Amino acid sequence: MPPVHAVLFDAYGTLFDVYSVALLAEQLYPGRGETLARLWRDKQIEYSRLVSMADPAGRRYRPFWDLTRAGLRQACALLGLELPPAHEERLMNQYRHLSAFPENHEVLAQIRALGLPTGILSNGDPAMLEVAVKSAGLQGLLDEVISVEPVRCFKPDPRVYQLGLDAVRRRRPDASAKQVLFVSSNGWDAIGATWFGFTTFWLNRAGLPAEPLGTRPTHEGRSLHELLPLLRGGTGGAA
Amino acid sequence: MPPVHAVLFDAYGTLFDVYSVALLAEQLYPGRGETLARLWRDKQIEYSRLVSMADPAGRRYRPFWDLTRAGLRQACALLGLELPPAHEERLMNQYRHLSAFPENHEVLAQIRALGLPTGILSNGDPAMLEVAVKSAGLQGLLDEVISVEPVRCFKPDPRVYQLGLDAVRRRRPDASAKQVLFVSSNGWDAIGATWFGFTTFWLNRAGLPAEPLGTRPTHEGRSLHELLPLLRGGTGGAA
Repeated sequence: MPPVHAVLFDAYGTLFDVYSVALLAEQLYPGRGETLARLWRDKQIEYSRLVSMADPAGRRYRPFWDLTRAGLRQACALLGLELPPAHEERLMNQYRHLSAFPENHEVLAQIRALGLPTGILSNGDPAMLEVAVKSAGLQGLLDEVISVEPVRCFKPDPRVYQLGLDAVRRRRPDASAKQVLFVSSNGWDAIGATWFGFTTFWLNRAGLPAEPLGTRPTHEGRSLHELLPLLRGGTGGAA
Repeated sequence: MPPVHAVLFDAYGTLFDVYSVALLAEQLYPGRGETLARLWRDKQIEYSRLVSMADPAGRRYRPFWDLTRAGLRQACALLGLELPPAHEERLMNQYRHLSAFPENHEVLAQIRALGLPTGILSNGDPAMLEVAVKSAGLQGLLDEVISVEPVRCFKPDPRVYQLGLDAVRRRRPDASAKQVLFVSSNGWDAIGATWFGFTTFWLNRAGLPAEPLGTRPTHEGRSLHELLPLLRGGTGGAA
């Protein structure tokens, strides 16, 4: 691996536990919380792809927050679950304040101790990312919080990954895409970033099979802790 | 509705019953056939979107047949189902020869009796579409079978719908997008075509809730038979 100049993280699912909403969903819909949380996530991601694909100039773009709400409504409708406004607000508020994964703080601090800038590169819009970062107590540990909003499309559109590379180059002008380590728990996001040219780490917490799309992420692991040997090896030139 | 100059149909799910593979899947995996058929379809569609989005120049494009196979493999892997080569070939062969919905023949014949050209506009590649049309006995009822292959992207990329409009204009040079009636059983495809500018009919066989994306298909119905009053009204100028 070439020396890493920066580490960028996907946000939802990678640093923030999107399935932590399942606990509240289970309270509101006993026996259906897990199913609702998964379908909600599926629809949210589906909508982000549809609005991206449907217009390359971004005229169908809607902020991820709006698509998250649309996804919740559709997931409930598909499952035959009533969604009164009070339930919707509670679930959306929970999504706004997702739990962070327990190892985040320590790993982010150790990456910065190696002298590497850290950042988020996310489908989220700036307002929801700001609240999420603060709620998770990560604000002192991230040099950049990059939203797709300026390019009005979503991952895996290469314009999104280019935003991340542009941000890294403001700090490290000579950085190549290969010298950016991009970390995502979403296999498709790790593949999209690999296609773009980033060195990638698929944080495969659940041990899922890789998507058979002909390209594998550069690295794979079950926890963010597994990033550190890669970075120490990379900066020391040994790996 | 302005007078309709042509009727274009989505293929998979609309004219061909993609869930007819569930019967074979159920034989091979008792109790899991329905779940496998749905997840297979979801992954197939997901992969078509990912390869479209990841490169606007089409360098990640792979024929729908290949993505269908990749979707089957991943669906089995996610469900923990073994997929020996003989099972894979039987399921893929079933997908190649999908059942047609029972009303297809009669409705297509009646549309042509109104003097309107008919066509398929599909994510499928030309080889799989040719076999599917023949297997379903529809070859004499379709004036055009249009694959996304020339544009190397998938729906809802507007270049796909433009292919359909271009084909209509070779027969009816003055046709506007609004004068093409596009029929799909996939709500997202009907919305994508509406965004493009087609008049649309969402063939909502299962009575699903509409995707809350701010745009509704022009028309909605439960069977292809419901197309005919629209066309008679449209060509007569009364609707």
